[in-house]
Amino acid sequence: MSNKVVLAYSGGLDTSVAIPWLKDKGYDVVAVCLDVGEGKDLEFIKNKALQVGAVKSYMIDAKKEFAEDFALVALQGHTWYENKYPVVSALSRPLISKKLVEIAEQENATAVAHGCTGKGNDQVRFEVAIRALNPDLEVLAPVRDWAWSREEEIEYAKQHNVPVPIGKESPFSIDQNLWGRANECGALEDPWAAPPLDAYDLTAHLEDTPNTPDIIEIDFEEGIPTAVNGEKMELAELILHLNEVAGKHGIGRIDHIENRLIGIKSREVYETPGATTLITAHKELEDITLVKELAHFKPVIEKRLTEIIYDGLWFNPIRESLVAFLKDTQKYVTGTVRVKLFKGHAIVEGRKSPYSLYDESLATYSKDDAFDHASAVGFINLYGLPTVVSSRVHKEKGLK
Amino acid sequence: MSNKVVLAYSGGLDTSVAIPWLKDKGYDVVAVCLDVGEGKDLEFIKNKALQVGAVKSYMIDAKKEFAEDFALVALQGHTWYENKYPVVSALSRPLISKKLVEIAEQENATAVAHGCTGKGNDQVRFEVAIRALNPDLEVLAPVRDWAWSREEEIEYAKQHNVPVPIGKESPFSIDQNLWGRANECGALEDPWAAPPLDAYDLTAHLEDTPNTPDIIEIDFEEGIPTAVNGEKMELAELILHLNEVAGKHGIGRIDHIENRLIGIKSREVYETPGATTLITAHKELEDITLVKELAHFKPVIEKRLTEIIYDGLWFNPIRESLVAFLKDTQKYVTGTVRVKLFKGHAIVEGRKSPYSLYDESLATYSKDDAFDHASAVGFINLYGLPTVVSSRVHKEKGLK
Amino acid sequence: MSNKVVLAYSGGLDTSVAIPWLKDKGYDVVAVCLDVGEGKDLEFIKNKALQVGAVKSYMIDAKKEFAEDFALVALQGHTWYENKYPVVSALSRPLISKKLVEIAEQENATAVAHGCTGKGNDQVRFEVAIRALNPDLEVLAPVRDWAWSREEEIEYAKQHNVPVPIGKESPFSIDQNLWGRANECGALEDPWAAPPLDAYDLTAHLEDTPNTPDIIEIDFEEGIPTAVNGEKMELAELILHLNEVAGKHGIGRIDHIENRLIGIKSREVYETPGATTLITAHKELEDITLVKELAHFKPVIEKRLTEIIYDGLWFNPIRESLVAFLKDTQKYVTGTVRVKLFKGHAIVEGRKSPYSLYDESLATYSKDDAFDHASAVGFINLYGLPTVVSSRVHKEKGLK
Amino acid sequence: MSNKVVLAYSGGLDTSVAIPWLKDKGYDVVAVCLDVGEGKDLEFIKNKALQVGAVKSYMIDAKKEFAEDFALVALQGHTWYENKYPVVSALSRPLISKKLVEIAEQENATAVAHGCTGKGNDQVRFEVAIRALNPDLEVLAPVRDWAWSREEEIEYAKQHNVPVPIGKESPFSIDQNLWGRANECGALEDPWAAPPLDAYDLTAHLEDTPNTPDIIEIDFEEGIPTAVNGEKMELAELILHLNEVAGKHGIGRIDHIENRLIGIKSREVYETPGATTLITAHKELEDITLVKELAHFKPVIEKRLTEIIYDGLWFNPIRESLVAFLKDTQKYVTGTVRVKLFKGHAIVEGRKSPYSLYDESLATYSKDDAFDHASAVGFINLYGLPTVVSSRVHKEKGLK
Repeated sequence: MSNKVVLAYSGGLDTSVAIPWLKDKGYDVVAVCLDVGEGKDLEFIKNKALQVGAVKSYMIDAKKEFAEDFALVALQGHTWYENKYPVVSALSRPLISKKLVEIAEQENATAVAHGCTGKGNDQVRFEVAIRALNPDLEVLAPVRDWAWSREEEIEYAKQHNVPVPIGKESPFSIDQNLWGRANECGALEDPWAAPPLDAYDLTAHLEDTPNTPDIIEIDFEEGIPTAVNGEKMELAELILHLNEVAGKHGIGRIDHIENRLIGIKSREVYETPGATTLITAHKELEDITLVKELAHFKPVIEKRLTEIIYDGLWFNPIRESLVAFLKDTQKYVTGTVRVKLFKGHAIVEGRKSPYSLYDESLATYSKDDAFDHASAVGFINLYGLPTVVSSRVHKEKGLK
Repeated sequence: MSNKVVLAYSGGLDTSVAIPWLKDKGYDVVAVCLDVGEGKDLEFIKNKALQVGAVKSYMIDAKKEFAEDFALVALQGHTWYENKYPVVSALSRPLISKKLVEIAEQENATAVAHGCTGKGNDQVRFEVAIRALNPDLEVLAPVRDWAWSREEEIEYAKQHNVPVPIGKESPFSIDQNLWGRANECGALEDPWAAPPLDAYDLTAHLEDTPNTPDIIEIDFEEGIPTAVNGEKMELAELILHLNEVAGKHGIGRIDHIENRLIGIKSREVYETPGATTLITAHKELEDITLVKELAHFKPVIEKRLTEIIYDGLWFNPIRESLVAFLKDTQKYVTGTVRVKLFKGHAIVEGRKSPYSLYDESLATYSKDDAFDHASAVGFINLYGLPTVVSSRVHKEKGLK
Repeated sequence: MSNKVVLAYSGGLDTSVAIPWLKDKGYDVVAVCLDVGEGKDLEFIKNKALQVGAVKSYMIDAKKEFAEDFALVALQGHTWYENKYPVVSALSRPLISKKLVEIAEQENATAVAHGCTGKGNDQVRFEVAIRALNPDLEVLAPVRDWAWSREEEIEYAKQHNVPVPIGKESPFSIDQNLWGRANECGALEDPWAAPPLDAYDLTAHLEDTPNTPDIIEIDFEEGIPTAVNGEKMELAELILHLNEVAGKHGIGRIDHIENRLIGIKSREVYETPGATTLITAHKELEDITLVKELAHFKPVIEKRLTEIIYDGLWFNPIRESLVAFLKDTQKYVTGTVRVKLFKGHAIVEGRKSPYSLYDESLATYSKDDAFDHASAVGFINLYGLPTVVSSRVHKEKGLK
Repeated sequence: MSNKVVLAYSGGLDTSVAIPWLKDKGYDVVAVCLDVGEGKDLEFIKNKALQVGAVKSYMIDAKKEFAEDFALVALQGHTWYENKYPVVSALSRPLISKKLVEIAEQENATAVAHGCTGKGNDQVRFEVAIRALNPDLEVLAPVRDWAWSREEEIEYAKQHNVPVPIGKESPFSIDQNLWGRANECGALEDPWAAPPLDAYDLTAHLEDTPNTPDIIEIDFEEGIPTAVNGEKMELAELILHLNEVAGKHGIGRIDHIENRLIGIKSREVYETPGATTLITAHKELEDITLVKELAHFKPVIEKRLTEIIYDGLWFNPIRESLVAFLKDTQKYVTGTVRVKLFKGHAIVEGRKSPYSLYDESLATYSKDDAFDHASAVGFINLYGLPTVVSSRVHKEKGLK
């Protein structure tokens, strides 16, 4: 009896070739394709897996779970990696791993396989996640293992009746989900050259964006976006809607040279129209609802959370503790944000909340004496004391 | 013999009224007006001080010192307060304080005066700085002290031959320097309302910006911008130049509800075309020249430095230690950044450096076996070990 | 009808004099004395309040609440202020404030009063806490207000039939609770002089400690100490027990020059035998049960939590978010720690846990190939890559 | 012509066997033994290398360089790894690597070899350091490569005339330098068992320590310890002296379960009598000389610096930036600390400094009105404002 392997299947050449390759190694291959919002024809992909030799093929719509359990953490955590782009691929890897392991357990498989190469972050994310979820499963990485040139891979594909894309190879290596689209490709390797225009897909070129803005209102309840222009939507739907509306205005294009987990700098192009709009709006709502001390410390949690997600440690216990902090901060992040979408900008023009600390402090403090002479003078006296004393001592002792 | 006070003089109504008010208190008033790039008619201001009663009036061009000793720290430190706007007023206060103290010592004055009210950050910044620089000087705050209504102030002005602005009072309270322009005003107090268009001055409205971009190249040497499009400029000049070019494209408009040092949330509008362009470009140059570990830790220093500057603690010893770190990081931040200025965006399209860690790692590692199977597999094994072990233990013990 | 004030009453001279003083101001005084483990005769204190003029006198045993809601946070949060002493007074202030406000609301009082002077931290802690809990209550600080010399105070006391301590005034100013004892006094003001021996009370002098150790075992369940030597105890009781046992061995003496919230450095002597023993033991249990990433980040939370508590911001929302993180980390902090109490040391000699990550990793990894050549080599290759690449680039370009 | 390899030689069995093993691989072996204060007979070791087949043998006294360039950073940086022990082995690895590379370049060697196994931190530290210093050198790890059992190693040793230790194998694996002694061994592997008494060497057992204390005064100049009891000493000498004096009193014993860089928890026993005494004294001098803001932020730098050193990244540019911060903080850390060495404790009883911020603030502020009613009241008003406003808003809206 042969062993079973559950393969994360994308429908592309690499994972299609992986099916006969794994069969050659003696495995029955169960293909699994997740829909996390990448906008592919998943029925076609499901069938293709069977066609190239899988014994079974799963197609799972995971958009809702992805939005609510993963994208929402990124939204509330303002997870801008290197202050530049919101984590995208890093966010889907733990969910895909979870589904792979669930199916592997259900199918009595002994192994799980992914299609990553040896040079990227995703291999780390998949393997750490899968082992954390079930350390008894073997993890296979056919593409990393076979280490073929493109020509060798195509040759093998032809021999095994795997359809080979016709014409010039796409220069792009793309990963997409609800939360955004990541693209790395040969043409991007020169950091002095601007990315080619066809590297982008979710967002309009600035030059082509409409000359009239869209102005939208986003409602949040305890940190969760619940409606756009008063229309209630499930989170997954809401993000997809914003991808469209904000994408049309060219919002969320990012050209970034980043530090990968595995030690190299790489250049990638991201498009995150919905994510950029939502994080921007959410931050502005926090600006009026979070108390100063929390507003100034939350970024420390955000930075660590971003690193943990990017670095593939979603299933490390630290993520739960960071999220416990995060969730507690969202209790009062309720209100509405008005955003002008225009020429690549998500400009927050207005924000309001029943828990606004801005309104209240004004209402309360503009007319009474909280800010009278005595308070300010006394505050400055004590607040500045350490600086003043140290300055005096250093001066008296003749030091700079 | 009467005592002398050195007054930070802006030419506006408040500090003009302060001159006779201080004379009433028995002081000879020495007015000091600094040019830190606010673009005012300083000769006029200098004379106005004398006209309303100052015994002496200084006008100091401090643009070069401001750019090189203050703005440069903000640039290299990416001092985005609350991740939103680069410190503006906070940056000039310590320099103005320094000049006031120098002139006070030179003039044998016993006091220094500023025109701040009791509700803002600047009173704190001035008073802590002045006392740190010379604890023997008394610090006076006439506007905070007199606590007049607008009408009372105008009445007093008229009685003392201080010129009163004709017509409707400007609704704006503005502070400007090389590094940007800050505006707070009554019309901004409703956080749900968009700022009025005339709240802005340094930047074009997005709707009015040119339909063709400007593409510029900025050269940096050890973190210092030295040329634009190959033309060498002194830093002050370079910033002013970028304010113009980037301002034309509507870059650097910020509408922010911030946490003031003195405990309230306030809303301000900022315009920082040059600063935004320069920090953006500088960050991208760091992205290719800073080693990962430094790139990931520098933001911790940046955050603290930003707080220290915003909070008026420039002369606290911690600033020197933070800057010592900062300066050390700039050794290799040399190179050129190509920026497309368009529709409110400073889009970095290319970056290059003789010390690029991006080029080298590619050149070196794309062809050899640094990324062969063994390295990635071994890395993942040890890197993921804590996560995997903790997961296994927690599972075995029947806990989630 | 006169207004009511609720006074935090300690039984000492200051708060006893405050009673007639507040009556003079037209208040009916309700005295409240909390037992948070300071070991005073509270019945006597309760009666004394009535005797010197209070209309009502409360005595509240708050030891259990203090231990479980406050000391436990300090224990799990390893709240060593300035890496030197576990917060003591700062921990009881929010609880006392809470009780004062509850009684004020129940008694329809319009004000609350405390006995702090204008130079310490506690005035800040009380006033911020009380206002946060009920901003409508006025906060009075009689001792800060009257600003009398010792002689003036005694004179007033005599005139108002307040008993005055006979003989030489105690040189000590002490605050004590379950979690420890704080002492500041004139004799401590010279930082070059050792504290006088009678500054200490809870701990034996090292010279007088037993020559044979006590060895105890402390059980923890999800971060909560539940038993000593197998004997189950409520937390308050357990802490008091350890104060005795560890105090006998001279554990937990601290002589610290600290930075007060109100801007000055002061010297204090602390004794925290139980707290020191418990935090030490708890940390060691975390050393085997927390995953590396959590163990390395938790100190960031601990530092901020310590500052927030010390700085009197217990009722700021940030405390809840920090504690949410903290509580999440304690899920697996279950086990037993064996501690040798000897000559001022709480030496952890052994620790065990069903969730030990130490045991498991050994059991699992000593015999298989997780640490074979390939893993270590591959790990080092990728882990060291940024350092090596940057070094190479900097060398080639002729820089140091 | 054969290639040359420079071997870090300790005189022990592993590196002695490595000499013939490397010869078998075709290398001429140059042995290098550094004296970083481990107290070995280095002349004997130097000769032993030649005897077992090295073509050349270097013995380098690096104590001064180790003390001044490495231990001093650890002292000023209070580098307590996991808040528990001062880095020991991690501190000597970069210096040894530097010397190995210098000699390799001088000898035209093509490789460098170390004696670490595949399970520890030191292999990472050596390899990253050596490659950073000279990426053209091959790094060999014979012990990791041969992966022999003890019996196989002894068999090989006998065949190649390498002296084999007679009698029972020592259960200890020790590394020692000026800054301390690290010991890991089989007997320590049970975290519930106390370490065996013979695991310790530099420190007396508490039970055996003198019943009378030694009281010493340590002078610091700009953060550098320069004298003990008024006697000037070079830093290396001073540390060795304190190892002796403090070791006699049992100071600096640490039993720690730590998180290794390579992903496992391990238990080690450390003895750092001099280091513990010096860091303790230095911290207390900082307590009176560092301004509050610096005192509260320096630990952030210390934590990162400790990790960087422990993690073998001494030659990563981040170390230089962290040290630039550190050095700047030491400008005023000048003064004298009086330490009582007794029963395992280094108790600071007194500290004084010409730059003491403690004395000055007292002298200055006890008599004037910095702490009058107005200052404290005003301070509390503004300082507590965010907490109070948020509390009010949350209450009014009916939320907890």
